[in-house]
Amino acid sequence: MTDEEICSVLRRYKQGSISEREAAAFLEKSSVEEMGFAEVDHARERRQGFPEVIYGEGKTGEQVLAIMEALAEKSAGSVMATRVSAEKAAFVQEKLPEARYDEVSRILYIERPVVRDPERMILILSAGTSDIPVAEEARLTAHLCGNTVKVHYDCGVAGIHRLFAHKADIEAARVIIVVAGMEGALASVVGGLTDKPVIAVPTSVGYGAAFHGVTALLAMLSSCASGVSVVNIDNGFGAGVLASKINHLR
Amino acid sequence: MTDEEICSVLRRYKQGSISEREAAAFLEKSSVEEMGFAEVDHARERRQGFPEVIYGEGKTGEQVLAIMEALAEKSAGSVMATRVSAEKAAFVQEKLPEARYDEVSRILYIERPVVRDPERMILILSAGTSDIPVAEEARLTAHLCGNTVKVHYDCGVAGIHRLFAHKADIEAARVIIVVAGMEGALASVVGGLTDKPVIAVPTSVGYGAAFHGVTALLAMLSSCASGVSVVNIDNGFGAGVLASKINHLR
Amino acid sequence: MTDEEICSVLRRYKQGSISEREAAAFLEKSSVEEMGFAEVDHARERRQGFPEVIYGEGKTGEQVLAIMEALAEKSAGSVMATRVSAEKAAFVQEKLPEARYDEVSRILYIERPVVRDPERMILILSAGTSDIPVAEEARLTAHLCGNTVKVHYDCGVAGIHRLFAHKADIEAARVIIVVAGMEGALASVVGGLTDKPVIAVPTSVGYGAAFHGVTALLAMLSSCASGVSVVNIDNGFGAGVLASKINHLR
Amino acid sequence: MTDEEICSVLRRYKQGSISEREAAAFLEKSSVEEMGFAEVDHARERRQGFPEVIYGEGKTGEQVLAIMEALAEKSAGSVMATRVSAEKAAFVQEKLPEARYDEVSRILYIERPVVRDPERMILILSAGTSDIPVAEEARLTAHLCGNTVKVHYDCGVAGIHRLFAHKADIEAARVIIVVAGMEGALASVVGGLTDKPVIAVPTSVGYGAAFHGVTALLAMLSSCASGVSVVNIDNGFGAGVLASKINHLR
Amino acid sequence: MTDEEICSVLRRYKQGSISEREAAAFLEKSSVEEMGFAEVDHARERRQGFPEVIYGEGKTGEQVLAIMEALAEKSAGSVMATRVSAEKAAFVQEKLPEARYDEVSRILYIERPVVRDPERMILILSAGTSDIPVAEEARLTAHLCGNTVKVHYDCGVAGIHRLFAHKADIEAARVIIVVAGMEGALASVVGGLTDKPVIAVPTSVGYGAAFHGVTALLAMLSSCASGVSVVNIDNGFGAGVLASKINHLR
Amino acid sequence: MTDEEICSVLRRYKQGSISEREAAAFLEKSSVEEMGFAEVDHARERRQGFPEVIYGEGKTGEQVLAIMEALAEKSAGSVMATRVSAEKAAFVQEKLPEARYDEVSRILYIERPVVRDPERMILILSAGTSDIPVAEEARLTAHLCGNTVKVHYDCGVAGIHRLFAHKADIEAARVIIVVAGMEGALASVVGGLTDKPVIAVPTSVGYGAAFHGVTALLAMLSSCASGVSVVNIDNGFGAGVLASKINHLR
Amino acid sequence: MTDEEICSVLRRYKQGSISEREAAAFLEKSSVEEMGFAEVDHARERRQGFPEVIYGEGKTGEQVLAIMEALAEKSAGSVMATRVSAEKAAFVQEKLPEARYDEVSRILYIERPVVRDPERMILILSAGTSDIPVAEEARLTAHLCGNTVKVHYDCGVAGIHRLFAHKADIEAARVIIVVAGMEGALASVVGGLTDKPVIAVPTSVGYGAAFHGVTALLAMLSSCASGVSVVNIDNGFGAGVLASKINHLR
Amino acid sequence: MTDEEICSVLRRYKQGSISEREAAAFLEKSSVEEMGFAEVDHARERRQGFPEVIYGEGKTGEQVLAIMEALAEKSAGSVMATRVSAEKAAFVQEKLPEARYDEVSRILYIERPVVRDPERMILILSAGTSDIPVAEEARLTAHLCGNTVKVHYDCGVAGIHRLFAHKADIEAARVIIVVAGMEGALASVVGGLTDKPVIAVPTSVGYGAAFHGVTALLAMLSSCASGVSVVNIDNGFGAGVLASKINHLR
Repeated sequence: MTDEEICSVLRRYKQGSISEREAAAFLEKSSVEEMGFAEVDHARERRQGFPEVIYGEGKTGEQVLAIMEALAEKSAGSVMATRVSAEKAAFVQEKLPEARYDEVSRILYIERPVVRDPERMILILSAGTSDIPVAEEARLTAHLCGNTVKVHYDCGVAGIHRLFAHKADIEAARVIIVVAGMEGALASVVGGLTDKPVIAVPTSVGYGAAFHGVTALLAMLSSCASGVSVVNIDNGFGAGVLASKINHLR
Repeated sequence: MTDEEICSVLRRYKQGSISEREAAAFLEKSSVEEMGFAEVDHARERRQGFPEVIYGEGKTGEQVLAIMEALAEKSAGSVMATRVSAEKAAFVQEKLPEARYDEVSRILYIERPVVRDPERMILILSAGTSDIPVAEEARLTAHLCGNTVKVHYDCGVAGIHRLFAHKADIEAARVIIVVAGMEGALASVVGGLTDKPVIAVPTSVGYGAAFHGVTALLAMLSSCASGVSVVNIDNGFGAGVLASKINHLR
Repeated sequence: MTDEEICSVLRRYKQGSISEREAAAFLEKSSVEEMGFAEVDHARERRQGFPEVIYGEGKTGEQVLAIMEALAEKSAGSVMATRVSAEKAAFVQEKLPEARYDEVSRILYIERPVVRDPERMILILSAGTSDIPVAEEARLTAHLCGNTVKVHYDCGVAGIHRLFAHKADIEAARVIIVVAGMEGALASVVGGLTDKPVIAVPTSVGYGAAFHGVTALLAMLSSCASGVSVVNIDNGFGAGVLASKINHLR
Repeated sequence: MTDEEICSVLRRYKQGSISEREAAAFLEKSSVEEMGFAEVDHARERRQGFPEVIYGEGKTGEQVLAIMEALAEKSAGSVMATRVSAEKAAFVQEKLPEARYDEVSRILYIERPVVRDPERMILILSAGTSDIPVAEEARLTAHLCGNTVKVHYDCGVAGIHRLFAHKADIEAARVIIVVAGMEGALASVVGGLTDKPVIAVPTSVGYGAAFHGVTALLAMLSSCASGVSVVNIDNGFGAGVLASKINHLR
Repeated sequence: MTDEEICSVLRRYKQGSISEREAAAFLEKSSVEEMGFAEVDHARERRQGFPEVIYGEGKTGEQVLAIMEALAEKSAGSVMATRVSAEKAAFVQEKLPEARYDEVSRILYIERPVVRDPERMILILSAGTSDIPVAEEARLTAHLCGNTVKVHYDCGVAGIHRLFAHKADIEAARVIIVVAGMEGALASVVGGLTDKPVIAVPTSVGYGAAFHGVTALLAMLSSCASGVSVVNIDNGFGAGVLASKINHLR
Repeated sequence: MTDEEICSVLRRYKQGSISEREAAAFLEKSSVEEMGFAEVDHARERRQGFPEVIYGEGKTGEQVLAIMEALAEKSAGSVMATRVSAEKAAFVQEKLPEARYDEVSRILYIERPVVRDPERMILILSAGTSDIPVAEEARLTAHLCGNTVKVHYDCGVAGIHRLFAHKADIEAARVIIVVAGMEGALASVVGGLTDKPVIAVPTSVGYGAAFHGVTALLAMLSSCASGVSVVNIDNGFGAGVLASKINHLR
Repeated sequence: MTDEEICSVLRRYKQGSISEREAAAFLEKSSVEEMGFAEVDHARERRQGFPEVIYGEGKTGEQVLAIMEALAEKSAGSVMATRVSAEKAAFVQEKLPEARYDEVSRILYIERPVVRDPERMILILSAGTSDIPVAEEARLTAHLCGNTVKVHYDCGVAGIHRLFAHKADIEAARVIIVVAGMEGALASVVGGLTDKPVIAVPTSVGYGAAFHGVTALLAMLSSCASGVSVVNIDNGFGAGVLASKINHLR
Repeated sequence: MTDEEICSVLRRYKQGSISEREAAAFLEKSSVEEMGFAEVDHARERRQGFPEVIYGEGKTGEQVLAIMEALAEKSAGSVMATRVSAEKAAFVQEKLPEARYDEVSRILYIERPVVRDPERMILILSAGTSDIPVAEEARLTAHLCGNTVKVHYDCGVAGIHRLFAHKADIEAARVIIVVAGMEGALASVVGGLTDKPVIAVPTSVGYGAAFHGVTALLAMLSSCASGVSVVNIDNGFGAGVLASKINHLR
């Protein structure tokens, strides 16, 4: 059961369109049972430390707070909300001091202990300093999902020796996330240096013909290196989740 | 050292622009040593059964034959050429009877024995029958890369019960490739049913507003399900390679 | 005669470019007579409860008020203005207390009693919470047009069991409106579950490759399900009107 | 159960990947039961004369023939295949003399008797002669779906009196399909003349800035008339099916 | 010599990069003489009442004032500045009380007497009220260029009888400017009703698939009516100038 | 009454769907009377020599022949068919020896005498030799419409002196048609040299970033010269008709 | 070693993630040595006066200050930061009075003496006054790179005599930068007048079909003149650097 | 005087529309004199070995032959025709045995001796084998323009060590042309390795999201490396000419 649904039930209950009993019944009903076959996976996911996630964009501070409290109570794992402004974060933190806010990635989160495998490392590389917020969204997401994460920023191809300085980490990583805007060439270069899965994240960094990330997106999709796949523009969260799913495969 | 390079050396030697000795020296030089750090990975890749690959588009039958012979002699693993027309394939097979041709995926290949782990299964789902050639390119690529692969075609969302019939396989798979054209909705639905990595392959199937695969591509990138990443339109080969890389992680 | 015309006549009269007599003559002239054949339809439309509609975007509070007063006086049916900001609504309501404002759909309206057929139900489904404003515009429009309307929000395909929970309503509806942003896959899934007409409304929800609703629009147009047609991005009003026209067919 | 599935089962049986018994079991299993709630609708659809449909594009003559024979035997209703070339049609007709081919719409079909309601008329209007193939696809589809259909071609807005000559039919129709390429303005004009649902079909007719139907598509979506919805470029079939669904509502 | 050049000379003189003598020399030099053959045309243009024009966008109030004063002194004809905000206009008017400002079209101008031919009328038609600012820019431009201009607004095709009410003027006009946003269909309908040149002006009115005027632009270019040509989106000024050039042909 | 309509009546008569009497009645009915107010204009147009026009694209040789014969008999003026292939033209000419075919413009026509005013000249300029077919379509159209036409080809801006060699004609012309592909800069340069109306025709000449005429189209619409309007890509016919309409204004 | 790297080292040192010793070691390490072969070029570049450059967009005033101070200390050449707002510039200048700010080009810089060759001149031409900020970015960049630079603004093709007034400079220049928005035609005209390399800079000046510089960009790429190459929209800096590199070739 | 003009004069002479004397007069008239100031440059260009160029696309074999003969007679330098098919080349060679044809670049040429400076080298790098035809067009163009040219193909970034093998040549070159399709990343990497001017040529190599070269084009324009400029897709000729112009600067 997602936080949207919980939120929706609570809202309807408050408006009186469903009774307390109906609300309770609805909240108890596990979405897992309904489908019949996803249950085991779901449980395993929790053990791996996958956090409960709230998409903060377009939600009020009150809404984020309400869902976060509900999730924090219900779940033994971490809780996170993405795309949260500093103002909303401050509002939530006042009521929920346990929550921490990362200004760069704009993630608000409650971290719960999880066992990490230091041998299974996710590496995040970014091309320029302007790409850092997206890269940090990926990093913190992967971290809260229970992974060991390493980052190297400022390794864009215009000064390719900066990338080669990180040879050892490229070799050691199990999954690599490449975050780049403008022409997004870093994904192809990294894809050619490794046989590990590479997740490319185009960013909206650049101007003119960069078309707010579209050029990087198309370039990454057209990459001459095989083994590279792509997520949406600025979708650091998605890359972090996917890297974690791959990294937790046994 | 890639087949392009081998081909290039041979061509220059034939034209007399480099001597026999130069050609030999060039061919001996391992591209791996030059970089200094990719060697171990490369060797491991071979053990896993990753084939030598030729991109057949825009090459003549003679060129495909020459590279394929060179690779087959040099390598103990499988050899494959993608996007090969039936005519070129017939030409090559006449000289190289060991080669087999798959008409649907348009792959020409020489298969060498490789140990497969039956527990580690890649699942390929396609939306419609028109998507089958792309799905088959993914399947045969993943197979030649040494994976256990299962496929279910015709599970498009317009009749969603067709997808639910494959519950057990969705649960059992380690990686899932979703191949779909038109609106590409299958990727989102599958992404919502599993916590395994999903690789979405948009196809150029459809007409009008499908824009030769662009709509499916954009839809998959905008997927509301997390854990989905995307490769280029009709790039079954890329999806197969990536799925194999993920599936071979230990 | 549309509200634009009434407004235009009033404005010219006020500026002195037409005389009082001309204005009166113009206002009396029925647009219906001029065409000669639409009269009967028009009258029937009114009996069905179709409201007089003002497009609020780009009009001042004074303009909305003036037209609304004129329409409310002239017509026995409901009156509505779409895309009205909270400020303009407050301005109008001060002078016209009969008017109510719906903050979510941004519709300002005067509701008049109309007989609804409870057996002829329009169902509105939306994918996510961010799509609710557009869905509510459709709902309130269809309601003011004299229809019985039911809604289920948060049934996006990433958790498809949420949709299946509404089986009975999908079966019972005469027309279904599907409101979705991002990849818009819900339209295809619903289109495959029913043989009723489905009106798809793409929304501008999403970022990056969602292109402000363009991706959802193209995906819905390319839907593999037949029986689905599409209206403009965020055009909840248009979907509500069309659903009502279909629902009133006998 | 769709024809794709039947085809798929037959193919697997032939290839020996499933046994005769498995094939039989699969073919007996009703897709309707699996979902649990669509059964009644499905049956009603058949009674209304909705034909079994094959999408002919990208299928061989043999495949079209095989599916058509299977459907013709299983179903008491009409059977149709869209986007069939004259060559494939001739091939099929040789083996299946019952099948008729319409060269303009490129539909191959077997028509079975169905009761039509002459009072419930679908009207199809097209802008120019080049739009006729798409309009005819809509007409024949709606006809085979058991509707009374009327057509008027060559009523483009550049000579708007041609449209006004059809007043009586516009008034009498329950649903109107407008087929137009180039700037697609006919949809807006018709939408302004009627209170019936209008289904707009953009066509790829035109050159240069018409962009193979994209301009007509966008223009129809941006129509200033309410009550207009749009299907994919050249999708006469989809418009015919949707018009039929609307026309059969009671 | 254009106002840009005058402005540039003044600026360089002020900055000291050219001497007073150089500035004077430059200002005296007639651009006409340099080309050798445009002189007569230029003089005729002035006699017809074509105003001196300043493009106000991106210029400061001071700049607009300086150029306007220079032009007003130098020229016996009207002077106009387009795309001037109310603030800049107020600033200029304080120093140059002769100047008048039209809020709707955002034109600031000094009108000088000119002989108009009442028999040679330019007709401007607009589709909706939101198109009025662009239409007014065309109207005032054509007026200041010495033409007799007539306007009818709110004649969009969704209520086509509104257009037919202006038959007599359509017949009487020498040139017709059609201003429309959304799907821009009015241009095609008018083009089909007249054998006079029609200048179509797409506007950025609309949302979603209207793409800020691009859809209207493409639709007008793809018009099925011949004799229609198109200017840039929202370019009322350009349409006014062109209509005037045509109307002054003898 | 257009040729499309005549064609349509003939077709229906032949198929037996209308009787001879109905066909005759329909053919007699003048479209002019129906609208009530375009009659005078229409007659004047004929006197000016405007030819009857057939759009040849997508019509068979038989169709072109049939319409051409009908028009030639009915009308005392010229008759022309655009976009006719050499094969179709040869077919028609065999039966209708009076018809002439221009291979460059691909126009098939029967020319009838018309009085031309040598003082009222239309000038056509093209940028390169590849633009000549489009320019010739404009020239022959304008010629058959009864105009005096002059042409200068190969005056592209990359060698701007080639344009200046035609000073006298630029000055003497009443209307100028500029035909250019690639970046379409000629339209701006000509627009800056004259105060006559300029009709810009983008052509599909060029490759890569020329996007089959779209770049020239956008550049012409964005022209910094006022008094320039634009028609569709490769639409020489439309430019010729419009130039003629302007040139015949009195 | 780029300023991004210096900045990154400083930041990590401050955050305590690297020790002082590590920071020092890192800062000493020359990026040049690492690559082994770029050293000589790099040194030569410095002698030619190429400044150290900071991309100011998205950096705080503090960050710009810190990097600028570091670079000014380390380097004997000029230092510049592009795309710096007036506010940030004022902040930096307060602490670093040596820095000067150019409001038009938005460049903040510290100029150090450099020997310029007056015979080797770079010429910058712009089409309109709105293009001046981009042209000035190119000019100041080329100036700080140690070049003799000359500029002529307002020479757009709509008044082509303005361009011809600068014949002597066009002939004398070694490299020409053409800055133009809207339809960007100036690049083609200049390209046709000279045999020197022309660098075209499209600007985002214009509206509607100018698409924020895309039309000028495509037009320049499609130029019929050879010897023209193009940089990104509004990229005056890039054009200045490239012109300098060409101008310094011996 | 360009070959287009010569061709045009010859054609008109042949058609009898100009007399022999007029033709002779026209051919003698130097376009250079007309402009008055380009003469010296033009002469210098010839001395440098710049060939006379014919754009072969869309010309018949006869036309290419006629112009080539005329140019070969008139000029002491080389003559070349680009984009010539093998058939046309064979036709020309039969009559003009001096001409040679390069199948890869599709250039037909007559080479005349020219002094080359071996110290001033142009380096051409291409990413893949499919880019070779475009790279060869650049190479042969630059060669015929009198330059020393070196090439390295197959150095795409997916195997970046292949690029590093050419360190010495990158250092030694005066100008570098980078030819790449797909994501075009090679331009950025090379741009970061050198301080020489880099001319990037996007190619139409790739599929799907490569959009026939548009993605490479946009990526190159958005390059994070400064000193890179871009020419049209597949425009090897333009890159060769520009590189030559730069290389001949003294």
